[in-house]
Formats: sequence, C-alpha cells, structure tokens
Amino acid sequence: MVNHYDAIVVGGGVIGSSVAYSLAKRGLKAVILEKERLGSQASQAAAGMLAAQAEMTEAGPLFELSRKSRNMFPKLAEELHDQSGIDIALTNKGMFKIAVTEEQVQEYKQMISFQHEAGEQVEWHTGDELLEKEPALSNVVLGGLYLPNDGHVLAPELSLAFAKSAANLGVKIQEYTEVFSFILESGRVKGVKTDRGELLSDNVIVTTGAWSHRLLRETGIDSSDYPVKGECFSVVFQKPILDSTIFSNGCYLVPKKGGRLIVGATMKSNTFDRKVTVDGISTLLDKAKRLLPDIVNAEWEKTWAGIRPQTADSIPYLGEHPEWQGLFIATGHYRNGILLSPITGEIIADLVEKKPYNDVDLTPFRIHRPL
Amino acid sequence: MVNHYDAIVVGGGVIGSSVAYSLAKRGLKAVILEKERLGSQASQAAAGMLAAQAEMTEAGPLFELSRKSRNMFPKLAEELHDQSGIDIALTNKGMFKIAVTEEQVQEYKQMISFQHEAGEQVEWHTGDELLEKEPALSNVVLGGLYLPNDGHVLAPELSLAFAKSAANLGVKIQEYTEVFSFILESGRVKGVKTDRGELLSDNVIVTTGAWSHRLLRETGIDSSDYPVKGECFSVVFQKPILDSTIFSNGCYLVPKKGGRLIVGATMKSNTFDRKVTVDGISTLLDKAKRLLPDIVNAEWEKTWAGIRPQTADSIPYLGEHPEWQGLFIATGHYRNGILLSPITGEIIADLVEKKPYNDVDLTPFRIHRPL
Amino acid sequence: MVNHYDAIVVGGGVIGSSVAYSLAKRGLKAVILEKERLGSQASQAAAGMLAAQAEMTEAGPLFELSRKSRNMFPKLAEELHDQSGIDIALTNKGMFKIAVTEEQVQEYKQMISFQHEAGEQVEWHTGDELLEKEPALSNVVLGGLYLPNDGHVLAPELSLAFAKSAANLGVKIQEYTEVFSFILESGRVKGVKTDRGELLSDNVIVTTGAWSHRLLRETGIDSSDYPVKGECFSVVFQKPILDSTIFSNGCYLVPKKGGRLIVGATMKSNTFDRKVTVDGISTLLDKAKRLLPDIVNAEWEKTWAGIRPQTADSIPYLGEHPEWQGLFIATGHYRNGILLSPITGEIIADLVEKKPYNDVDLTPFRIHRPL
Amino acid sequence: MVNHYDAIVVGGGVIGSSVAYSLAKRGLKAVILEKERLGSQASQAAAGMLAAQAEMTEAGPLFELSRKSRNMFPKLAEELHDQSGIDIALTNKGMFKIAVTEEQVQEYKQMISFQHEAGEQVEWHTGDELLEKEPALSNVVLGGLYLPNDGHVLAPELSLAFAKSAANLGVKIQEYTEVFSFILESGRVKGVKTDRGELLSDNVIVTTGAWSHRLLRETGIDSSDYPVKGECFSVVFQKPILDSTIFSNGCYLVPKKGGRLIVGATMKSNTFDRKVTVDGISTLLDKAKRLLPDIVNAEWEKTWAGIRPQTADSIPYLGEHPEWQGLFIATGHYRNGILLSPITGEIIADLVEKKPYNDVDLTPFRIHRPL
Repeated sequence: MVNHYDAIVVGGGVIGSSVAYSLAKRGLKAVILEKERLGSQASQAAAGMLAAQAEMTEAGPLFELSRKSRNMFPKLAEELHDQSGIDIALTNKGMFKIAVTEEQVQEYKQMISFQHEAGEQVEWHTGDELLEKEPALSNVVLGGLYLPNDGHVLAPELSLAFAKSAANLGVKIQEYTEVFSFILESGRVKGVKTDRGELLSDNVIVTTGAWSHRLLRETGIDSSDYPVKGECFSVVFQKPILDSTIFSNGCYLVPKKGGRLIVGATMKSNTFDRKVTVDGISTLLDKAKRLLPDIVNAEWEKTWAGIRPQTADSIPYLGEHPEWQGLFIATGHYRNGILLSPITGEIIADLVEKKPYNDVDLTPFRIHRPL
Repeated sequence: MVNHYDAIVVGGGVIGSSVAYSLAKRGLKAVILEKERLGSQASQAAAGMLAAQAEMTEAGPLFELSRKSRNMFPKLAEELHDQSGIDIALTNKGMFKIAVTEEQVQEYKQMISFQHEAGEQVEWHTGDELLEKEPALSNVVLGGLYLPNDGHVLAPELSLAFAKSAANLGVKIQEYTEVFSFILESGRVKGVKTDRGELLSDNVIVTTGAWSHRLLRETGIDSSDYPVKGECFSVVFQKPILDSTIFSNGCYLVPKKGGRLIVGATMKSNTFDRKVTVDGISTLLDKAKRLLPDIVNAEWEKTWAGIRPQTADSIPYLGEHPEWQGLFIATGHYRNGILLSPITGEIIADLVEKKPYNDVDLTPFRIHRPL
Repeated sequence: MVNHYDAIVVGGGVIGSSVAYSLAKRGLKAVILEKERLGSQASQAAAGMLAAQAEMTEAGPLFELSRKSRNMFPKLAEELHDQSGIDIALTNKGMFKIAVTEEQVQEYKQMISFQHEAGEQVEWHTGDELLEKEPALSNVVLGGLYLPNDGHVLAPELSLAFAKSAANLGVKIQEYTEVFSFILESGRVKGVKTDRGELLSDNVIVTTGAWSHRLLRETGIDSSDYPVKGECFSVVFQKPILDSTIFSNGCYLVPKKGGRLIVGATMKSNTFDRKVTVDGISTLLDKAKRLLPDIVNAEWEKTWAGIRPQTADSIPYLGEHPEWQGLFIATGHYRNGILLSPITGEIIADLVEKKPYNDVDLTPFRIHRPL
Repeated sequence: MVNHYDAIVVGGGVIGSSVAYSLAKRGLKAVILEKERLGSQASQAAAGMLAAQAEMTEAGPLFELSRKSRNMFPKLAEELHDQSGIDIALTNKGMFKIAVTEEQVQEYKQMISFQHEAGEQVEWHTGDELLEKEPALSNVVLGGLYLPNDGHVLAPELSLAFAKSAANLGVKIQEYTEVFSFILESGRVKGVKTDRGELLSDNVIVTTGAWSHRLLRETGIDSSDYPVKGECFSVVFQKPILDSTIFSNGCYLVPKKGGRLIVGATMKSNTFDRKVTVDGISTLLDKAKRLLPDIVNAEWEKTWAGIRPQTADSIPYLGEHPEWQGLFIATGHYRNGILLSPITGEIIADLVEKKPYNDVDLTPFRIHRPL
C-alpha cells in the first residue's frame, strides 16, 4: 500500500473530519486514517454545546476563535445538509450560565464587560427573571448570564456530516488504520507509517485528540496534553421542560430534539478509561436534580463517556510542527472540540495551502509555546 | 382514571400520531393511547418511500389520495421541524420503477397514460438511459419508469415528529395503555375501556394498524384486514452509489443519508410474527445483488421486520363507523402508511369536526363497503 | 389454523414455560402461545432471588410452597442443563435480611421462631458479625437474619431454559400469538381464540402474569390482581465485593457471576408502563450507596424494568377455574415468580392430569377465594 | 504510576487472560494491561470450536499441542466455574469434517492414519451414515470424518472466565491502557511504557494477537505475523437441528445452547478492518444453505467480525524473546486461539518460572525460527 495524497489526516473525529472537509472543498486530494471507526471517541460523547461565550472567562485569542467558529455554524449546517443529507440540528435558543453561590454571581457578572467590549450579547438575569424564562429550574439558582447566541448541535451528526461530506467531495476514508509514526526527511514530513504499510504525502495533519501525545513524541515534541474523561447521561421528557441550555459549574443540561435532555459532564484527568462509573452518574444526577427537580419524572435513557484532550494552559494546539515542515497539529480542544471544529478545518486548510491566516493571531496556539 | 377528551386516538403509530397532530392543530384536546411504545411497530420498520406513483397501477381514489398526501410533505417537513426539532429527511430525488422482464416493460409502459392524464410527471427510460443515470445498477435492468416526484422520508423520524409535535400542542400521550373495547351507548361512542380503567370522549379514532381487527369486531364489524409481515435489511456505503430510489418487483432500494441503503421488503401474509428469518434476508439479498452488484462491497448494518395492515381490496379503511357515531377508523394502509399519514390525519380531523371532506371521494374507503 | 393439543399454555414467561416443561415431562403434547417473545416481560426483569425465607414474614401455605419450590432448584438446574445446555447459574451463598432501624431489628428477630419451627436454618447476626462476613457493607447496618439456603439464579436463563427444554421434549412454541378469549362449552374449556384463529384443547392454562386480568374477566372472574412495576439497575465490579445476597427494605443487592451486581427494585402499583424513570434509578442508587458505599467505584452497566402481577392478599392464584373445567390459572406470583416457577409447573401438571396435589393445601391459592 | 509486578501481561484477550490465570494459580502477582476492553477482539468473535483434530492436516508439534490443550478443558471448565461462576458451556458432541468433493473425500480419508497413530478417535462416515446422524444436512455431503472428541465452548465466556478467575486470585486488570514499548536493559526486560506511564517487572508477556507486530518490531524482531479477518453470523432455531459441529471447507456450523447456530467464518488477509461486509455474509449464507437447507427457517440473529493473528508457517509464536530475557511472546494462534489458550497459559507460566517445559517440543514455536 503506497499511495500519494495531497494531505493525510490522521484521526477521524470531528476535528479530522472537518479538516478533511475543508481540504476537499479547496480541491485537495486527502485521506482520513482512523484507527477505529469515524467519530467513535470524544466526538460522539460530546453534548454538542456551542458555548463560545459560556465557556470563556476572559478575552483573548481562544475567545476570538470560539466566537468566529460559532458564527460559521448557520452556513455550515446548510452546506453539510446539502452534501450529506445529514441534519446537525443547529439550535439557537441561547444559554444560561447559572450561578448557585454568591461568589459565582459576582464572578459571572464580571464577565459581562469583556464580552460586551467584544461586541457580544450578554445580560444578567436575576433568579426571578431566570425562573420566569425557565420555570422548571429550582430556586437554588441565584441568577445567571443569558447568552442568546450560544446554541448547540448534535455532536455525532456533526462529525459524521463532515466525514460524509468530505467523502462526497473525494476524500478517501480508511477506518481501522493506525498511524504509528511519520516519514520525516530533510526537515519535512513525507508520509506516515501505518499498521498495514506506508502512505506518502507532503502534508500530514495530526488530529488524534487525547491520543496525540505519543505520536507527537515520535516527532521530538513532549507536548503537555493529557486526557480528561467526561461522563454523561440522557433522559427523555414527553414534552421539553427547558428551552435554553443550562450551563453551571460541573453540570450542564442540553435540551435536544424530541424531548431528550443531555446531562454532562464529569471531568476526571489522566485516564483513558472510558467506562462509565457509578460515581460519575451519581454525582451528575445529584447536581441535575438540584437544578431541575422535575428531572425525576423523565425517562432514563442511557449513559456514556468520552476522553477529551486537554493542554497545560487550556489552549488547543493549532499549527505547523516547529521542526518538520508539512506536519500540522490540531488537538487539545478539550470541551470545545465541537465548537471549534469548523474554524480548525479552515485554519489548517489555509496552512496547508500556505496562505497566511490573519483573522486570529495563531501564536498562542503553536505547539512549541513556552508553558 | 376517568378523564374527558375531545378525542381519543387509539394507537401511537404514524397514523395515530398524524391524526393527533391534525386534531391538535385545530385546537382539540386529544390523547394518544398506545399499548407499547410510540411508533414501535410498522412505523419504524418502514423504508419511508413516498411512492405515490410507483405503488399505484391504476387511476382511482387511492391514487388521488396518495398524490395529494405526497404533495403535503414539503410544508409538513418544515412544520414538524419547527414544532419538534426533528428533521424527517424529506428527499426528492425521484424513483425508478424498474423492469427486469419484457412483461414488466409492457406493463409499466402502460401505466404512463393514466399518470399523465392525472397530470403527473413520468417518463420511460430504456435500460441504457437508466444505467446512465444510475450506473451502479446491473444490466438485468431492461428499463423503467422515472418518477421525479416520488421521494422518501425517514419513517421512524416522521412518526416521532408527529407525536412530539402533537405533544407540544397539548396532546397527552399514554404509552403502555391497551384499549380493549369501547363504551357504546345510544348509537354513539362514549369512550374506551383500557387495562387501567376508562377514558371518556365523544370521538374515538382507531389507528391500530394490523392490530385493528379484534377491536373492530368488538363493534360488530368483521373487517377484511389481515397482517402482512415485511422484512428489511440495511447496508452502509462510504459514499452513496445510488441517487434515486429503485423500486422493483419484490425488492426496493432506498438510499438514505450518510450512505445508508435500505433493502426491502418481503411480504408474508397472515402472521404477526416479527422475527426476521434467514429466508427473508437471503431472498432480499439475492434480489439486491442482482440489481446492484456492488452492494457486496458495502458494510452490513442490520435487519428488522414489521407487520403491515392489508385489506381485501388493498384500499385503506378511512371513515366513521356505520353504526356508532363518533367512532372513526383509519387503518389498512399496508405499504403506504408513511405516504398516506399526512392526509389521513387531515381527513379524520375533518370528520371529527363534522366538516365535509370534499377533496377526494371517501366512499371507496368506508369500512362497510362490499368486498 | 385448527389444532388439537393436550394442553394450551397461554403466556411464555417463566411460569408458562415451567408449566409446559412439566407437562412435556409427563408426555403431554402442549403448545405455548406467547403474544410477544418468550420471557420478555417480568421474567427477564427479575433479579432471580430464591428468597423463600427472606420474602416471607409468617408461616403459612405460601411459605411452605416457597420452601418446597426453592428445594427443587438443585435437581432442576441439572435437568435443564442436560435438556437445553443452558446454565441457570444457581448460587447458594445465602442471603442477609438486613435491618437498618431498631424497629426492623425487632421485627426480623421475631421471624426466627416460625422459621425454626418449620425446620429452616436462620440465625441473627449483629452488625459487627455481619460486617465481618460482608465487610463492604456500611455501618448503617444494625444486624440481620442470615438465611444460608436462600440463593439465586439467572432469571432470563431460567425462563429460556424451561422453554427450550420444553421444546426439546416436543412442546410447540408460537410467539407473536395473542389469545383473546376462550372457547367455553357445557361447563368446560374447549380451546382458545387467538388473533390468527382458534386452537383446541381440553386443558388451557393461563400464565399471563400482570396481563391476566382481562382474560380472566372473559371467563366471568373479576380477579383482584394488579400490576406492580419494578425498576432495577446493574453495575460491574472487577472483583466481587459481596458474597451473599443483601435483602433490605426497598433495596436488594444480588451478586451475579463475573462481578455483576443487580440492584432492585422499585415498586409502583397500577401501571403497565415499563419505562425506567429517573426517579426510580435515583431512589435505588441512594439506597444502594447507603448500604454499600463502594458501589460508586463500580462500572455502570444498565437499567431495566418489569411489570409483576400482585394480588389483593399477596397470594398467587393457582388452581382450576371455579366454573369452567379444564381452565387453569397460575399467576399473581409478584416478587416470587422465579422462586415459585418449578413448583407451579408441577402443581398445574398434577391438576391437568387430575392427580390430587397433597403436598401443600391449595385452598388459599384458589382464584375464587373471598378477599 | 510506577508499580512492580512479578509479571506484566500485555493484552487482555483469551490468551493474555489464560496466561494471567496460570500465573496467578502459581502465586505470582500479575497485571493485565489491555488497550480497550477485556476480550473485545478475536476472543469474542470466535465460534469457540475445539477442533484439535479437524483443523490439523498432519502430525507434528501443533497437532500435539492442540490435543493436549483440548484435553485440559473438562477440568478447566470446572475450575473456572468455581472461581468466577461463569459456565463456558463445554460441549462434547463431536465434530464432522465434511467432504463435498471427491478430492476432499480422498484428502480427508488420508488424515485418518496419522490421527490413529496419535491414538485419537476418528472414523470415516459415508454420506448416508452421516445423514443418518445429522439428517438436517443436505445430500451435497459426500461423507466425512467423525471426530467424537472435538467439541466447543463459548469463546466470550471462556475469555471472561479466565480474566475474572485471575482477578479473584489477585491479578490486577487495567483496561484502556496501551503499551507502546518495553524497558529493555542489559539483555533483559525491565517493564513496559504505557500511555499513562511505566510499569516495572522482570517478566513481560506479549499476548496482543493481531496487534503484536509493531510491539515486536520495537524489540528488534520483524515477525511474519499478519491479520486475517473473519466474519460470522448466527441464527436461532426453536429446537436444535444439528447435534454435532459441522466443519467444512470455508464454512463451519457450530450449534450452541438454546438453539443458536454460529456460521463462520470468512478469511480475509492483511486487514484490521472489523466491518462486516455484505460480501462476507452473502458468501457464508450461500455455503450454509447448501449444507443445511433448513437454515432458511431459522431466525436471523446477528453478524460480527474479528481479526485473527496468522503467521507465515501457520504455527503460533510461543516462547522467550531471543535477545531480551524475561520477554515472552504468545501470539499467532490464528483459528486456534480458543483451543490453545489453556496450554498456552501453562507453557508461559512454566517459562516465567524457569521450569523446563518438556511435554511438547517448543522449538517449532520459537519466534526467531527460520521461515
């Protein structure tokens, strides 16, 4: 198996599939190499929040990137539907970042100004105002930020839609193909070595999420990324009892079509163990009951877990390898992989095409930054 | 449990859910009583074809009803999406009714005139023309009717979208509630008897599909309907190899989003047994391979079966009970349940509201017709 | 479809399958008519406890029956394994009936004497003694009855093993066949009416669990039975942390092979709704954590529910119909269906063969007893 | 995470779990490191045949090893049941190696003498004799070898029983832990490097099946092993129609408890792709229908696939690394992994304990043999 591609994407999660889609739209001949099934890890475990404002506690390049990426979704949803027939269920009913302690009230109120300065909509709701909009919430809620533009999508559908749209545009998909190392020569990447042979390309993009560390080490980089497990469960109401997404410390509630509600997510660092634990479910359940007492009347649906890639400074890695030309990295998206997937695809495609990416300063995202 | 409703819908499949949705849009307070889970029988087994032209071999009221119902889908898809967030994946890429024998060639060509007279688009494609449009088909195909307006939807999603939209409009849904008989007094229905008590209403609609016979017998009608089992399987291509739906004698191929292809469906009369048989799968597989040789390269996905309600003259039952006022019947849709669900909902809602339904002559559909 | 059988068993749960097995061992030609799949209701939801002593709070015929039935299991397990190859995983590691209040301490201690009088082993363990045997329990446990002979089996396997063994001995199994009523003539049963026709036999046994009420009403009996929903969940430990079964008020913990632990079961009366609720799981989880704190470290496996048939006096119905000869009833086993299945099969087979059953006085079990 | 163990077993399939079990029985403190879940690859895809005679076409060390391992099963089944409660469903109803061409008749008859010389039971059955014993077979069967001692077990249960029994004896199990390379110093192994750190031990056993190649290359060995995909499907009969296992060229039929029948297995070399293909299922189905026409009346159950490790000379790798002391290899079992698992565990445990293993000459199994 020796083939030559314009680009090899290593990893078939939402990031890799988005990158492949962006490359294909520009006419490049790419292949996705996925060690198991497409979108079978963090991408399918995500609740799909587009929390560009809710997740960010300060201004900065990640905040900028997040907002730009979120704003790409309306057009993207249409494009992907046209290409693949898949509806990513983009929902724009806003998000509440909920405070349940006085400390949080103060902390969240202070977030308003930097978001306003950035031109984003955000407003404080008192507990009463909040309960008027979302009467199913309990009165442990002291108030919250209302973020009308933070919505959500179906994460597994987004990941599949990127991949299938890419395939329709000519991208080849090879599942069950594990990349072990890179072919590196004269300062540039020349291809990859897999468990069934070599593939050649002048551009290789590593989008292997929590499983990137070892691959990067093969290229001389001891990256700071580490896995963080997240557990979730879902319930079903006959009729939705929440309209907006509820984002609180350690527990979010994301209302999906058909009355489903996703409750997530625990955060357990430094494990690749995807088993759902009784502890995780019990903890989430207690938090959810405290915020939304009527959840007890819902139907229990299912539980799951995923492993997200975190970095030491909580900023993703996005950019070219400092030593090996043509080797690009896009990982470390942690809880923002779904949100950042569209812009990540475009940034990497620009880099592959050697176009300067000027919209956002990418310096803070480079992999060899000091930590 | 004694309650009073404007209407009681017995059966939570696609027909009952559509009826409830139509009633709710008119402001009526309805309840759906479903003996198991919503949409768990034929509605979720259907391939979702809207074969208003492909399934009909002659002009007549069923042909009329089918076309009218098919034409309701574009607006309906939007409505249901707005109400429930659910995308029914309406696809309008046309259908080929394929001939593989000279007899079929003659038979199908003769269908063109009555369809043209009805103002429908249909044109004959020779084998070569057909293979040009659908190059993955084999040359056993001698030609076929091209029906550009026969599309398909996702059947389980349609059924769920009707029910959830109805619930959002105030319809109550009671699953795991079996209706045994009716409360009949002075020439009219007064309610139903369930396994947990009685519910009262002046309007009761029976939409229990293949399970209607016994209920109708309780009202003095020995209907001619009988169950017909259909088995299906599905496969997944990395990239779709068919664009339109292929409809042939004893085997249809319905391309779904994401590269899925549904192959259906066997027809075994007079059984409620929903087990998938090796015989059924083997027969379908042989037919599918003959039409579409490259199916062998697809991924095997899954198998399933459903029980469809057929009548002696292949015309559904739609109308009021001849003896008991307020008791309505809507069943016997056989292979056209998905297609006919929107118009069935509207017809029944008109009847409940005592509005004359004049668009189509309902006489042939009445339950006490001579057979 | 007109056939003649020595006996028709209506219902393919653990009771019906046991009856069919007993009949087949005696050379009778029987058929099981099951409306859905074999063992798909309460039989597969059960935790499989053989709590002949733990469930009974007083001496009496049910206590007698329970002990006799429990003692049949060792031989039965071998028989079924020989016939069907299925291992029912009979486990005899004893059960603790746990007290967590002083009231329960007193109440349970008083149960010792009637059990001793019956010749059964039972002894009181103080909290310390108990924790020594089961160190994973928490100190909310004040003490408990140790019942060394109360074990457990795998309920789904037992049900399947009965049915498959019966089939091997010549019993015909018809799934997806619903019985609506009986053919009753001249004071005796002559057969049954199903959704696909009639079957004839001089012996019909009703073993339809929580779904018996309506069928019995067809025969003129307004029985007192009602459905009681039970929800469960299971977890998996890498290594078992409990040896014996823990039986407490409102929560039992049954350790299964491979480190699985079943936690059950809620009790919600008068519903056929099999949906698992958040409330049910949350309640069980809290109780389980209180008894067994280390459960939080287990892997979450799954949740399920079943509908059990209860009677007004908590005594099953076992016997012949008071008016219709040849019509036998065996239902109302509530939480003891698995335990009582072997003896129920034998009792009914004796009645069918018109042998006097003298081991236990069946008067209290007759269906037309005063309540 | 730095720990010290007596032995580290890399890979939690049936081979690794058997090795860990053998080590634990000898009092050694071992850990299993499994990159995903225990027994989730070839071990759970296997049909569980113990075809010590049917798979072997000539005398030699593999034939010897196979027979010895097969003979360990009766005692092992009891041991594992006692330790873990798990029944591996050992079945000893013999196997027919079926000939459907005259060539096969001649070829198989010639196999009788070497098996008789080895003291094994084997006899030729003509087509008529064979159909008398197994009347469900078709008359394409020209005759076959009857091997009364070749039976089968449930492969997933065997794998789990080894692992859980090992855990009960003190073995630690770490799932979701991938080993990347070894710590090698002064001619011996000192431990392993995983994705979450290092573990230390003087004994490391590589039992990673089809995924061993890359790990071995890290130690300087370019082994000849390659992956071979096998696809299967299963059906269910109400009542078994086969008694013995049917082994034919390219298709085997293994009757399991409860009327299940496993049909396997395709052989596709050089792929790790575990997707079930339409081609694979279609091919197996045709072969199965030809041998067993009544299979069409069975219920379709499911399909699956696994990746088996094959070697250039079809002999497994069993032994110590030629350069690194303490590093042991046990892989390449191809279609005989279930059969050879017990003896592999014992051989490796002997080697770890530095006991000479004299029962079988291990020279042909050493990894650095000339090929």
